[in-house]
Amino acid sequence: MSERVYRVVQYGLGPIGQELARLAIERPSFRLVGAIDIDPAKVGRDVGEVLGLGEPVGVVVRPDAEAVLAETRPDCVLHATGSFLDRVFPQLETAVRASCNVVSTCEELAFPAAGHPELASRLDELAREQGVTVLGTGVNPGYVMDTLPLFFSGVAQTVTAVQVQRIQNASTRRKPLQEKIGAGRTIEEFQQLVAAGSVRHVGLRESAYLIAAGLGWTVERYEERIEPVIAERRIVTEYFTVEPGRVCGVDQLGRAIVGGSERITLHLRMYLDADPAYDRVRLEGATPLELVIPGGLQGDRATTAIVLNAVPRVVEHPPGLVTMVDLPIITVRQ
Amino acid sequence: MSERVYRVVQYGLGPIGQELARLAIERPSFRLVGAIDIDPAKVGRDVGEVLGLGEPVGVVVRPDAEAVLAETRPDCVLHATGSFLDRVFPQLETAVRASCNVVSTCEELAFPAAGHPELASRLDELAREQGVTVLGTGVNPGYVMDTLPLFFSGVAQTVTAVQVQRIQNASTRRKPLQEKIGAGRTIEEFQQLVAAGSVRHVGLRESAYLIAAGLGWTVERYEERIEPVIAERRIVTEYFTVEPGRVCGVDQLGRAIVGGSERITLHLRMYLDADPAYDRVRLEGATPLELVIPGGLQGDRATTAIVLNAVPRVVEHPPGLVTMVDLPIITVRQ
Repeated sequence: MSERVYRVVQYGLGPIGQELARLAIERPSFRLVGAIDIDPAKVGRDVGEVLGLGEPVGVVVRPDAEAVLAETRPDCVLHATGSFLDRVFPQLETAVRASCNVVSTCEELAFPAAGHPELASRLDELAREQGVTVLGTGVNPGYVMDTLPLFFSGVAQTVTAVQVQRIQNASTRRKPLQEKIGAGRTIEEFQQLVAAGSVRHVGLRESAYLIAAGLGWTVERYEERIEPVIAERRIVTEYFTVEPGRVCGVDQLGRAIVGGSERITLHLRMYLDADPAYDRVRLEGATPLELVIPGGLQGDRATTAIVLNAVPRVVEHPPGLVTMVDLPIITVRQ
Repeated sequence: MSERVYRVVQYGLGPIGQELARLAIERPSFRLVGAIDIDPAKVGRDVGEVLGLGEPVGVVVRPDAEAVLAETRPDCVLHATGSFLDRVFPQLETAVRASCNVVSTCEELAFPAAGHPELASRLDELAREQGVTVLGTGVNPGYVMDTLPLFFSGVAQTVTAVQVQRIQNASTRRKPLQEKIGAGRTIEEFQQLVAAGSVRHVGLRESAYLIAAGLGWTVERYEERIEPVIAERRIVTEYFTVEPGRVCGVDQLGRAIVGGSERITLHLRMYLDADPAYDRVRLEGATPLELVIPGGLQGDRATTAIVLNAVPRVVEHPPGLVTMVDLPIITVRQ
C-alpha cells in the first residue's frame, strides 16, 4: 500500500462527525483540510476548539459546502449528517458535483437500492460522470450485520440461512443514543416513539438487502418489528436513571424472506446494562459456521474507524456508487 | 452478481483436489470440464469413479495438462498439487500460458513475495501478458490467520499488534494430516521430522507477510519455531492410537518483528483431541478487539470452500498475480 496522505473534509460535526475529524487529525495518513456544518454554535470556530483539543488546527467550520469543497478540493469527503438518504441527498450531490469521493455514515446509503432505487441510480450516474466514488458504511449497517457475515460466507461450502445477533450495552454509549433507544420511557411512550419512527435503528433493512445481494439472493419480503426491552431492576447510567418496569432499550428484529422462507434474520438488542454484550454471526448450511465478537464492537468507535479506513479503497476504486461488497478488504489505516 | 456458470478444470486429485472436484460437480454455479493428475491409479478413469460418486461425470482424468487446458479452455483452473511454489511453478506456468485464470491451494502462493520474490514477479508478468489472474488461497494461509485479521482491522482505530491463535482438533481431520503432525511419534522422531521439514505447516510465514502488507508494515525479521504436543493420556482416532508421552500433534509459532518489536504473532496448535478447538484473532490497540470462531474452521472444508468461492472474483479481476487483500470480499457461491 502507498504511504499517501489523504486530504479529507469533514461534512457534519455531530458526535460521529466530531470523532471522525478527531481521528483524521490524529492519524498521519490523513489531513483534515476543511469542515462543514450549519450549526451556528460551530460555524466560524476552529475545529480544534469545537473538538476541545486545546489548540487550533487551522481549519474553520463553515456552512457553505460548495465553497469549502471548491477551495479545498479534498480526496474524499467524510459525510456524517443523517440516516435518511432522501434528506441528505442534496449534500451528497453537492460533494459529488464538486468531484469529491465520499464516504458517508448515512445508514440508508449502505445499500441505497433497498429504500431509494431511483436516488441510488441518480447518484451512481452522477458519480460516474464526475469520476468519483461514493460509499455508505459504518459498523451497522456496513459491517457487523452484513459485510462480516458475507466475508465469513467465503469459507462456507453452502449457506442456507444467515443469522446475526448484535447485543449492545447502551450504557457505554453517548447520551443521544441512550435517548434514542427510549431509556427511561414508559411502554406507552416507547410505542408512541416507535409510531413516530424515532426509536428505530435505521439500517437493518439495508443490511438484509446487502447480505442478499452479496449471496445472489432475491428478497421477496422484508419484515421488521420493534419492541421495548424492560428494566428488571433500577439502572443508573451517566445520563439516565431507569426504574424497574420502564424501558431500558430496544429489541429490533429484521427478517428477509428468500425463496419462500426466512433466510436472513437480523436481531439487534441495544439496551442499558446488557450483559453479556456480543456480536454473533451464524451461517446455516451443511456445516454451520459461527463467529463471535465478545463484548461486541463499540458502535461509535467502530463506525468512525471503518469510515476513515475506507477512504483509500474508495479513492482508488473505479467511479460510481458502491457498497461494501464491491471494495477490496478494508484494513486499518493509521 | 451474475448467474454465470464457471467452467473449471481440476489440476491435482489428491484429497483436497478431489473435494474441490466434488464441490464443483455439486454446485450449479460451476461446471467441471477437465481433470489433470499424473497418478497412474487415476489416469484414464472418470472423475465420478475416482471420487466414488457411483456414476460417471463425463470427465476423464488425464496427465497432459497442456492438452487438457487447450481443449477445454476453462474460465479457471483449480490447482491443488503442492505447498511449495518452486515445485509447482511449472504447473502454474502451464496454466497461465494456456490463458487460464488460476486459484491455487499452494500455501506459498498465498503471499509468494515472502519466499520467492523472483518467481512471484515472473508469474505476475506472465499473468499480465496472458490477461489472466492468479491467486493462492485456502483457509490457512489465505483466510483465518491473515485475511480475517486484516478484514477485522477495518473496524479498528489503531492496531499495534496482531495475534492469531488457531487450535485445531486433528482427530477430525484426514489421515495424511494426522500423519503430517507426527501423531504417535516419539519426541526424537518428531525432531527428526522437523529437521527434515516434513511436519511443518507451510504458510505461517506467508500469513505474517500478508498481514504486514495489508497493514502497510515492513517485516524486519520473521522467526518460527516448532514443538511437539505430547499426549497426556491414550488417544485413539480413526487412524492412530497414541500412547501417553508420545507426540499427538504440533505447536508452531510464527513471529514477525516490525519496527523493532513483535507485532504479528501466529500460533498454530494442531493436535489430536484438542479441546476446546477454536480460532481467535486479537488486535491490540487503544481499543483491543477480539473475534472467536468456536470450534475453529475445519481445514479441508473451509479450504475447498474458499478456493471455489474465489473463482468469480478471480475471473472478474484485472490480470496479474494477486493476494486475498487485492480482491473484493469473497462470498459463498453455490
